[in-house]
Amino acid sequence: MNDKIRIGIVGYGNLGKGARLAIVQNPDMELIAIFTRRNVDSIHVEDKQVKVLNIHMAEEYVDLIDVMLLCGGSAVDLPIQGPYFASMYNTVDSYDNHGNISEYFRDMDKASKLKGKTSTICIGWDPGLFSMNRILFESILPKGESYTFWGPGLSQGHSDAIRRVVGVKDGVQYTIPIKDALEAIRRGKTPQLTTGEKHIRKCYVVEEEGADKDKILKEIKSMPNYFLDYDTEVIFISEKELKENHSQMLHGGFVIRCGSTGREYDNNHLMEFSLKLDNNPEFTSSILLAYARATYKLNKEGHVGAKTVFDIPLKYLSNRTSVDLCKSLL
Amino acid sequence: MNDKIRIGIVGYGNLGKGARLAIVQNPDMELIAIFTRRNVDSIHVEDKQVKVLNIHMAEEYVDLIDVMLLCGGSAVDLPIQGPYFASMYNTVDSYDNHGNISEYFRDMDKASKLKGKTSTICIGWDPGLFSMNRILFESILPKGESYTFWGPGLSQGHSDAIRRVVGVKDGVQYTIPIKDALEAIRRGKTPQLTTGEKHIRKCYVVEEEGADKDKILKEIKSMPNYFLDYDTEVIFISEKELKENHSQMLHGGFVIRCGSTGREYDNNHLMEFSLKLDNNPEFTSSILLAYARATYKLNKEGHVGAKTVFDIPLKYLSNRTSVDLCKSLL
Ligand SMILES: NC(=O)c1ccc[n+]([C@@H]2O[C@H](COP(=O)([O-])OP(=O)(O)OC[C@H]3O[C@@H](n4cnc5c(N)ncnc54)[C@H](OP(=O)(O)O)[C@@H]3O)[C@@H](O)[C@H]2O)c1
Ligand SMILES: NC(=O)c1ccc[n+]([C@@H]2O[C@H](COP(=O)([O-])OP(=O)(O)OC[C@H]3O[C@@H](n4cnc5c(N)ncnc54)[C@H](OP(=O)(O)O)[C@@H]3O)[C@@H](O)[C@H]2O)c1
Repeated sequence: MNDKIRIGIVGYGNLGKGARLAIVQNPDMELIAIFTRRNVDSIHVEDKQVKVLNIHMAEEYVDLIDVMLLCGGSAVDLPIQGPYFASMYNTVDSYDNHGNISEYFRDMDKASKLKGKTSTICIGWDPGLFSMNRILFESILPKGESYTFWGPGLSQGHSDAIRRVVGVKDGVQYTIPIKDALEAIRRGKTPQLTTGEKHIRKCYVVEEEGADKDKILKEIKSMPNYFLDYDTEVIFISEKELKENHSQMLHGGFVIRCGSTGREYDNNHLMEFSLKLDNNPEFTSSILLAYARATYKLNKEGHVGAKTVFDIPLKYLSNRTSVDLCKSLL
Repeated sequence: MNDKIRIGIVGYGNLGKGARLAIVQNPDMELIAIFTRRNVDSIHVEDKQVKVLNIHMAEEYVDLIDVMLLCGGSAVDLPIQGPYFASMYNTVDSYDNHGNISEYFRDMDKASKLKGKTSTICIGWDPGLFSMNRILFESILPKGESYTFWGPGLSQGHSDAIRRVVGVKDGVQYTIPIKDALEAIRRGKTPQLTTGEKHIRKCYVVEEEGADKDKILKEIKSMPNYFLDYDTEVIFISEKELKENHSQMLHGGFVIRCGSTGREYDNNHLMEFSLKLDNNPEFTSSILLAYARATYKLNKEGHVGAKTVFDIPLKYLSNRTSVDLCKSLL
């Protein structure tokens, strides 16, 4: 008899690859199959035991997989793949399109309830761990100010934006918290700050041969939403240097709240949560797996429908017994 | 009609006083009464509206109070007051006797289920917020090492121990994390460390007139459990200096996990949670209130019995609606 939680992966990009590696770290889980839209022969997985299947095969596995990790992109893949899989499987995804979460929640809730499944959405570090700290901090210290800083880290969306500029061959963008802003808050200040007052943007760009560097620089710096309202630095480098020094997917960030209590609100308290990650998708998929365990247990107990990090008690994430949790971690 | 959560406070020490002040910060709550074992006339509360009652009056208030905050001490008060109140009221306490939590949980669970009440136990920052991060960190990165550092902060227990030494008139003890140990972990090291390898203990002592300072110093430094296994510093100061510089109840600490992922476990990730508190009991009682809100809601939904931070979804702590939570904090 097999007591392991049987995991499936949908979509084999960065997150999907990270999830495959993370499953090995969790002795109570096993990987059953990876589902992809691409030609299965084009996907190379080191471990020959792992099945790579076309996504259309997923309907055949409903009795063989306990939780499906949806590792597709938030913009285009998840709005379609999410409800489709949620109607057949317990699912976990890292949907991160902040503006559309309410609709996505509604769609996933409806789909998963059809067959009594549980769909845990918006899992990762932001949304995810950072959201948990935002709600926790604010609930404890109602009088105060919360701040989220991202980075230092490589931003996929901003790197993509750079690469779309005419004359740019390749490039990456780092989001970097402004130290002075961070330190002021740590000293108990509660300024009102825009995202641009909290972060600088540093771009490493490889230009096409003969491209006009000045023009590239101006175009990047004036890009609305992405760079215009930021202190943006553009550094031109060689293709070789980009490959060697900028191919790691570093990321991280901080959630901080400075709040006060007491008769005259004269006692200040600082709560801080921070991450420093060598590899963003590997870390994010490790979070997906902890929530896959939770999703599996919640569904066994009859908690169906869509869930977020706000809905799930922490004990569900752990592989330890309740008694052990009390003894070892409380 | 009154929609506020009606709060009672049992025990008017540091936590009880902090709780009274914190209720004012939470517009969805109101303080009904403070219950004490002492002569009610000996208790001075600024706000004349607040009832101060003998603890025996508590039985009369079962229909007038939604959640009782148990602010007694963990060693002697809570083992008795806990089950007594849990059998009449929804309760929240900050029981922190790590070694006896399982028994306390069992007693509170039994008592609260008798009348369909909910008792949330071990609330605070350690146990409490730190425990939440310990379970979260370990569940996400199974391969890694977690560390808890306490301080810089005033330790009540260790200060009491100093004051019991013959020749000591008064004194306080600060627990201080060892910077080098903290920094090594932040750089990705995962050493095995005892509590003594993570902290130093700094004592400020006022001696009785004519007392033998050398003897006091030796006695403190050789006290088993408390100081023997630590790098302990003893500084003699005047009574005036103690009053002026060491009467604030500063505290704080860190929970850190360094873990790794990837094919060769070559990607390191650092997760860190930290607190820097001007006033330990005021902050702790603010946590009690967020959990009072949760306890109230849980009980309304029929979740009875004893609960810890591992059992309670974060949404219950907040005063915001689910839709607002998704929009503003997720
Ligand atoms: N909440 C958080 O903290 C957090 C953190 C990180 C990421 N995320 C989110 O997670 C989502 C996925 O991120 P990701 O980095 O895994 O995205 P990605 O690498 O672009 O992968 C997305 C999808 O693209 C397809 N794909 C991957 N490589 C391909 C290739 N070579 N050719 C054609 N198609 C390919 C895959 O589907 P097929 O296998 O079906 O082709 C894959 O599922 C993003 O939307 C991101 O925003 C959230
Ligand atoms: N989990 C955490 O992170 C955390 C953090 C901080 C504290 N705690 C725990 O919370 C518990 C309470 O801490 P505390 O600082 O509030 O303790 P405290 O000030 O010693 O108060 C404990 C009790 O002593 C009685 N008392 C207070 N002042 C008195 C006085 N002048 N004369 C006689 N009796 C008096 C009060 O009961 P009556 O009014 O009935 O006399 C009060 O409920 C401790 O056990 C502590 O370990 C936990």
